[in-house]
Amino acid sequence: MIKQIHHINFIVRDLDAAIERYRALFGAPISAPETLPQRGVKLARFRLSGIWLVLVQPLDPSGQPAQYLEKHGEGFFLMSCQVDNVRKAAQQASAQGINVLDSEPRQGLDDWQVMDLDPDDLFGATIQLVESHE
Amino acid sequence: MIKQIHHINFIVRDLDAAIERYRALFGAPISAPETLPQRGVKLARFRLSGIWLVLVQPLDPSGQPAQYLEKHGEGFFLMSCQVDNVRKAAQQASAQGINVLDSEPRQGLDDWQVMDLDPDDLFGATIQLVESHE
Repeated sequence: MIKQIHHINFIVRDLDAAIERYRALFGAPISAPETLPQRGVKLARFRLSGIWLVLVQPLDPSGQPAQYLEKHGEGFFLMSCQVDNVRKAAQQASAQGINVLDSEPRQGLDDWQVMDLDPDDLFGATIQLVESHE
Repeated sequence: MIKQIHHINFIVRDLDAAIERYRALFGAPISAPETLPQRGVKLARFRLSGIWLVLVQPLDPSGQPAQYLEKHGEGFFLMSCQVDNVRKAAQQASAQGINVLDSEPRQGLDDWQVMDLDPDDLFGATIQLVESHE
């Protein structure tokens, strides 16, 4: 059901500083910062061999990304895995005993439709399902 | 200099339980557990679209993986990025102001030659350089 890694998110406190450092390390052009208001974050991204790497800075202290940052500190935030149909994939995960945190897909960047799996059922890793047809 | 993501490691307390759950989610055959004595861990792995996903359980409580687990809890551990020449790539990272934690490449699984970058210079993310020609 899971085809490939679609994007990996890193949570940071200072997006501009992180952009500069990641650009230096990866030698890749990084997008201008974007905001995702429904998620309470700003972010910038680049592609590495077909996979999006996304730097995320929380803006809304009550949002889930800010809470994650508070609890875990900076670093890896989530790995999003591409599926053909996110609702069906979530049902399959649920049938395997993995709790799905979203009852409906959330709109991410571009055409990304995402649903989060419960890290408590995946040994602490935040793994997300994403449907994207672009 | 960095070509692609080569492997992503997840740190877990109970490898056998994690294998069962990740096999259910990813629908992929997962290798039999291996040990990497020089790292003080046992692990199992599977490939997702050309990228190794590695489940790692610390065995040696004084090793770096055990210390990471103690500090951060279970979940994402590191992302290893493939380069043509790990020594040269480490020199380039160093020239960009990123501290390289290993003075010499370490032997990982298979023919993997790895060098870790300092998470303090990468906003908390443990990013590793790896040279592999298999």
